[in-house]
Amino acid sequence: MVIVGGGFGGLTTARGLGGAEGIAVTLIDRRNHHLFQPLLYQVATAVIAPGEIAEPIRAILRWDRNVSVLMGEVVGVDTDTRAVQLRDGTRIPYDTLVLATGATHSYFGHPEWERYAPGLKTLDDARRIRARVLLAFEAAEREDDPAARDRLLTFAVIGGGPTGVEMAGAIAGLAHHALSKDFRRIDPRKARILLIEAAPRVLGTFTEDLSAYARQSLERLGVTVLTEHAVEDVSEEGITVKGKLIPAATVVWGAGVRASPAGEWLGVETTRTGHVPVGPDLAVIGRPGVYALGDLAMAKAEDGKPLPGLAQVADQQGRYLGRALRDRILHGKAPKPFRFRSRGNLAIIGHNSGVVQWDHVKLKGFLAWLVWGVAHVYLLVGFHNRLVVTLRWLWAYLSFQRGARLISERDEAVMALIRGTPPGRIPPP
Amino acid sequence: MVIVGGGFGGLTTARGLGGAEGIAVTLIDRRNHHLFQPLLYQVATAVIAPGEIAEPIRAILRWDRNVSVLMGEVVGVDTDTRAVQLRDGTRIPYDTLVLATGATHSYFGHPEWERYAPGLKTLDDARRIRARVLLAFEAAEREDDPAARDRLLTFAVIGGGPTGVEMAGAIAGLAHHALSKDFRRIDPRKARILLIEAAPRVLGTFTEDLSAYARQSLERLGVTVLTEHAVEDVSEEGITVKGKLIPAATVVWGAGVRASPAGEWLGVETTRTGHVPVGPDLAVIGRPGVYALGDLAMAKAEDGKPLPGLAQVADQQGRYLGRALRDRILHGKAPKPFRFRSRGNLAIIGHNSGVVQWDHVKLKGFLAWLVWGVAHVYLLVGFHNRLVVTLRWLWAYLSFQRGARLISERDEAVMALIRGTPPGRIPPP
Repeated sequence: MVIVGGGFGGLTTARGLGGAEGIAVTLIDRRNHHLFQPLLYQVATAVIAPGEIAEPIRAILRWDRNVSVLMGEVVGVDTDTRAVQLRDGTRIPYDTLVLATGATHSYFGHPEWERYAPGLKTLDDARRIRARVLLAFEAAEREDDPAARDRLLTFAVIGGGPTGVEMAGAIAGLAHHALSKDFRRIDPRKARILLIEAAPRVLGTFTEDLSAYARQSLERLGVTVLTEHAVEDVSEEGITVKGKLIPAATVVWGAGVRASPAGEWLGVETTRTGHVPVGPDLAVIGRPGVYALGDLAMAKAEDGKPLPGLAQVADQQGRYLGRALRDRILHGKAPKPFRFRSRGNLAIIGHNSGVVQWDHVKLKGFLAWLVWGVAHVYLLVGFHNRLVVTLRWLWAYLSFQRGARLISERDEAVMALIRGTPPGRIPPP
Repeated sequence: MVIVGGGFGGLTTARGLGGAEGIAVTLIDRRNHHLFQPLLYQVATAVIAPGEIAEPIRAILRWDRNVSVLMGEVVGVDTDTRAVQLRDGTRIPYDTLVLATGATHSYFGHPEWERYAPGLKTLDDARRIRARVLLAFEAAEREDDPAARDRLLTFAVIGGGPTGVEMAGAIAGLAHHALSKDFRRIDPRKARILLIEAAPRVLGTFTEDLSAYARQSLERLGVTVLTEHAVEDVSEEGITVKGKLIPAATVVWGAGVRASPAGEWLGVETTRTGHVPVGPDLAVIGRPGVYALGDLAMAKAEDGKPLPGLAQVADQQGRYLGRALRDRILHGKAPKPFRFRSRGNLAIIGHNSGVVQWDHVKLKGFLAWLVWGVAHVYLLVGFHNRLVVTLRWLWAYLSFQRGARLISERDEAVMALIRGTPPGRIPPP
């Protein structure tokens, strides 16, 4: 059996098959690590370090002796001969194939915006955003022209979903607290943080009162929330909304999502966003022996609505699929359909402030923030990561400082700042 | 006043001048962080994470309101008009200039070896070596040819000084313990780790018995120690010693050191290795108002011997120079000459094993290892870094695991492994 992808879906599937003698599993990923994406925004805003939310896939599956891990990039699937094609030319045959390749950003038909508005899906994305955010302050400290300085100190986050809300709140905390004493010529507290959302409210998947609370919390943190503002253009100068250019040196994309190209590999019909439709047993329709789950798949809840692209969905699907495949292959049992049980919707806004919605239970403020923190530390892979992240959070909470403000010297933005061409600009890679 | 370099020497000079009203200090560095170089080898071998030994210079100097920090790369000094030249064209005037630009690797007239044998001076060096070491195991797991696999599982460390000894010991710990259960086709415990030294013994600055102990400890860890072996060539294939090629995919350079080019900026005569001779007050001879310290400077002890390139030398020189400049500028007092007080020589070999030499006190084994650990945690900048590193060490000590095995997806070696060109090779950048 071949599993492609070491995210939540692929990893929990592999773990579910661990120890199943008679099933030889190969998990392929182009990275050596499993990434805990829900905390990626904290890497991008220097709260925690990249390694603290990444754990080698190999180390996680160390004791599952029937599972081997292969570092490689899948570029295609041959469903006729049942083989996976790697970029280096290797072909890996499979009897059963599990695709858990996740999703990436979508720029609504404007791929040219990506240069100026990176999204947040990988550790390199997070490192790049961290470098841009921190270097905007460095460049502003060196800038004499007031307009150019204002542009450097304007941060626009596009998309009012959980990622956008979390990013905007965390950048505000960075500017208004962590960096407040570190500069001599600029006052980081005067930085403008904009959260841009096309819909009438932020956190649209939450109830109206929680979403109103989130907006108030953001505004209290110093974020300017612009709802009913669709982004019309993104360029080196900044963003355009309602026909007006807002100069901004740093733009972060948290709006659209598109599935990875696994649907193309299979040659199946996908949704408009590239998601692969699967049946109640997570099998890809019309491709026997192929399963898809997590952010790649379009699975439906019992009420017929598509399941959201959340870590908990991928995690539960992986647990289900591992068990189901084991039963099917070893015992010839047909599995019951997958059923998603929501563990609640959570989002963090800033220091002491979050929202939690779980069936009829609603929490906001400090308690929601605490629930979110405990849940996320618990879900982290690796005992030492849990300890280290807890420590970082305690430190950030008590001192208002950020422990991971490292900028890699290889970053393109560092090179641009140092070369000074064009002056005061941070050209994207 | 301008200070160039935020390492131990530059930073402690700046801190010594902090709060001295009437002295405006600008510290320039091309990185945003101060780096604790003594633990760099632990980043290269995945024990701790990059951010844990780096602290933003700005954050360290936050409360020294007369000190401002500028991120920029110095490319020259005009001693006639007294100005520092940045790469982006900016000129920063100075009355007093402190040069603390450190040192880099020297390849004994073979700059072409650097491609194949990276040294260990910056965080990016450490990240690159970490990626190469970890990816050698990944590539070996995929390799079918036994000779190619042996080459991938051979690690050569060149130079038997503290850096080389520490690297070789740490790679042995990684291969023989941390990774031992993680692969299915290779046995990482069969990896060969070579330590190559031209002189008759390793740790040549220690006494003979400590250096014999270090050798035994390394051999117990599974390191092959080749003393009286000068490196004759380094290539993609491996290293050549005594006319014989030893195939090795991963070569780490820990041999020669050369000062940064600040001597050329000043147009002064330097030592053969580029070190800038300074007087007993750390002033550069023939360049009034210019001081040099740390790894850049060639300062002499009372007995006329040159001071070694150690963190403790730079640190003490910085403390001295901060005080001396304050006295000279604010009170017109001529300073007493600098005097180095050795805090002892320390090197770590592996789990439970190290050597300490301090005047007539000699320690080895577990006690030396403990002294080394406590001293280094104490010297780390940043309270949270101390906590996090202590945790990581406890974790590594108790579990034999490594907590920071992250490979960046942007790394050239990752790309090469994934593209598979040429098969099984990890071409250097």
